[in-house]
Amino acid sequence: MEVEIISVGNELILGQIVNTNVAYLADQLRQLDLVAKWQTTVTDEPAQIEAAVKLACQRADLVLVCGGLGPTADDQTLPSVARALGVDLTLATKHWAAIQADFAHRQVAMTPENIRQAYYLAGGEPLANPVGLALGSWLVSEQAAVAVLPGPPREFKAMVQASLLPKLRAHYGTTTPVQTRVLHFVGQPESLLMDEIAAALGDLPVVATSYVQPAEIQVRLRVTGKTPAVAEQLLDQAQQAIVAKEGAYYFGSGPAVTLAGQVVALLRQRGAKITAAESLTGGLFQSTLCSVSGASAVFDGGFVTYAARAKHQLIGVRQATIEQAGVVSAQTAAEMAEGARRALAVDYGVAFTGVAGPEPLEGHPAGTVFVAIAQQGAAPRAWQLRLNSRLGRQAIRQQSVALVLLALYHQLQGKN
Amino acid sequence: MEVEIISVGNELILGQIVNTNVAYLADQLRQLDLVAKWQTTVTDEPAQIEAAVKLACQRADLVLVCGGLGPTADDQTLPSVARALGVDLTLATKHWAAIQADFAHRQVAMTPENIRQAYYLAGGEPLANPVGLALGSWLVSEQAAVAVLPGPPREFKAMVQASLLPKLRAHYGTTTPVQTRVLHFVGQPESLLMDEIAAALGDLPVVATSYVQPAEIQVRLRVTGKTPAVAEQLLDQAQQAIVAKEGAYYFGSGPAVTLAGQVVALLRQRGAKITAAESLTGGLFQSTLCSVSGASAVFDGGFVTYAARAKHQLIGVRQATIEQAGVVSAQTAAEMAEGARRALAVDYGVAFTGVAGPEPLEGHPAGTVFVAIAQQGAAPRAWQLRLNSRLGRQAIRQQSVALVLLALYHQLQGKN
Repeated sequence: MEVEIISVGNELILGQIVNTNVAYLADQLRQLDLVAKWQTTVTDEPAQIEAAVKLACQRADLVLVCGGLGPTADDQTLPSVARALGVDLTLATKHWAAIQADFAHRQVAMTPENIRQAYYLAGGEPLANPVGLALGSWLVSEQAAVAVLPGPPREFKAMVQASLLPKLRAHYGTTTPVQTRVLHFVGQPESLLMDEIAAALGDLPVVATSYVQPAEIQVRLRVTGKTPAVAEQLLDQAQQAIVAKEGAYYFGSGPAVTLAGQVVALLRQRGAKITAAESLTGGLFQSTLCSVSGASAVFDGGFVTYAARAKHQLIGVRQATIEQAGVVSAQTAAEMAEGARRALAVDYGVAFTGVAGPEPLEGHPAGTVFVAIAQQGAAPRAWQLRLNSRLGRQAIRQQSVALVLLALYHQLQGKN
Repeated sequence: MEVEIISVGNELILGQIVNTNVAYLADQLRQLDLVAKWQTTVTDEPAQIEAAVKLACQRADLVLVCGGLGPTADDQTLPSVARALGVDLTLATKHWAAIQADFAHRQVAMTPENIRQAYYLAGGEPLANPVGLALGSWLVSEQAAVAVLPGPPREFKAMVQASLLPKLRAHYGTTTPVQTRVLHFVGQPESLLMDEIAAALGDLPVVATSYVQPAEIQVRLRVTGKTPAVAEQLLDQAQQAIVAKEGAYYFGSGPAVTLAGQVVALLRQRGAKITAAESLTGGLFQSTLCSVSGASAVFDGGFVTYAARAKHQLIGVRQATIEQAGVVSAQTAAEMAEGARRALAVDYGVAFTGVAGPEPLEGHPAGTVFVAIAQQGAAPRAWQLRLNSRLGRQAIRQQSVALVLLALYHQLQGKN
């Protein structure tokens, strides 16, 4: 079973953007034990797309074509694939009506080209796009099975999950059984984490691979060629061995798990509410919390206290604390967390103060960050995070948010 | 002149890492007006590398092979390329002596495989590696000119700069000059924007390509084959024509420009400060502002007012407004913006209230968003954004922030 991925786009060919889609797709295909041995990138030129698809159909059984489904004249992927396969295009009339209704609702003028996003390969079927306008296509021809997917990563990922993977599962049915499980970690360097996981797994027939994201490391466990029951048992064993060793950095398993989602769920279970006072993170903690659907059950609001005067004025951090300990200090963090908690009269308050950089502050280098968690009925707990100053401004902020969420996750489970 | 880039590596094929090297190399090649129309990724298997190089030599004049020059057994790129070209490998004795000296100096044990990093394609010449051990190769054969480069991005970039680009410049001589300029837009659908830009450019010899990012559209203008002075003039003309038509959506030119950065810069110029009260965006506006280094000059702090009680309690939105107009309303947005502005006694206050979804709120569907800008000495201005409800929770929040930043950008320039 040979698989080829063809990425289409001048912006890829010219190096204007990095091709994250192909890595994402290749990784997802491994759930089905499919390895895309050939990966090709071509320009938007119709003749080149056509040639690439023809070549791919010769050497592969499954061909996945990604990008170039936009409504503009330079988006020529679909008609080019159709020519390569010798098929026509079919208009999905329902989808076309939905596109028109959407433009009408938004009161935006349509261009004649917009209809192009409602076509699919004749004789095949459309692949639904849960978050965008362009339809995908799926066609099993004599030469190969071919899927066509949109380029924007948000649409691409949504279509892979919602439409492509189910289609491939249905089509290829019982290939070698592969069972996977995703574990989520934060706060441990990847190389160390993976070394320790390899040691924890020992001789278990479970393969672990890591996937580094901005504020977490996903570890995918994979068992091949076992019955589902045996595979489940192996994955349980592996997970137990890993969590026993790396529990301090672990925050859950499953494809849809996020650290903020876990914290919101625990707060809901406890009927507790949270607030925050953020300095260097500037609202990133609260915004991350609010990215979870249903956050309103546990979060009413909070504060961004970037300047010293806002820390004093909005949440009552004492001038004496700021002057004596400095704004970059455990004392200030503690008073911020407790001050925010009291201002909104909720169960938990968290705080962030420190140096995102690039410039030092109060003599502290970038990466010096103090955080605190205040809980009703207890003294606030404040501590310093140790972050690499070379991470850069944005990563220092993201890591700070992730590490406080991890501390909340453990605290809400009664672990510290 | 056809160019092909071949990337080698199982970790690329399996989606464990994203291929940043190919984007970097493609972008660098454009300085020489070289476009790598074919880009292929293959596994570490010798037979597949050999086949890919043979195919590339048929369809391209210049073939660049990247990755697989490490000292371990699975690094088979160099011997595979040699087989494809029908040449032997030559030991660079000086470089081999240098590797040995390096290991001795570091007091690290060598493995017998380390000698493999000192070979290059016979009949060609080595490409120096300024930061690593593996030599590159350059060979002009009858079939094509071929370069072989290491995979680790740090070594790869260093060799491209220090060895490959000078070699290509010398080999291909005075190629066509290329000048580019990036313009930034937000708030206009890509298809409409690019149609109107094409019309604005008319017969100008300037090519425009678009690149959609989460909360902006970048348009790259490109002029080929002109002297720098003429190219600059053409780019100026093109930019003028485009901005005259699309000024409402335009926020600057240059590779490092961000919308938040532009707004922070304008506020600094005016010596003005800003604050915010955020409901559905949950702190994303303030966090975006704080992602700009130097934001502290224009931003002291602000509020996340997610629940109605926080809107009332923290920034004095009237209960009557919330009850009569609803929290998802222009009136509430206006009172939030003005309330936040007064609470911190600053020049500008902005506010966001609405429905990120997926669930409706107060009978309003996801994507219903009201925003406001309050300015000291003027009545607050509130309006409704028209967002696609299918964008999804995160994109609705990002778009809302981007559209308010755009309004601020225009208001601070005195344009509305």
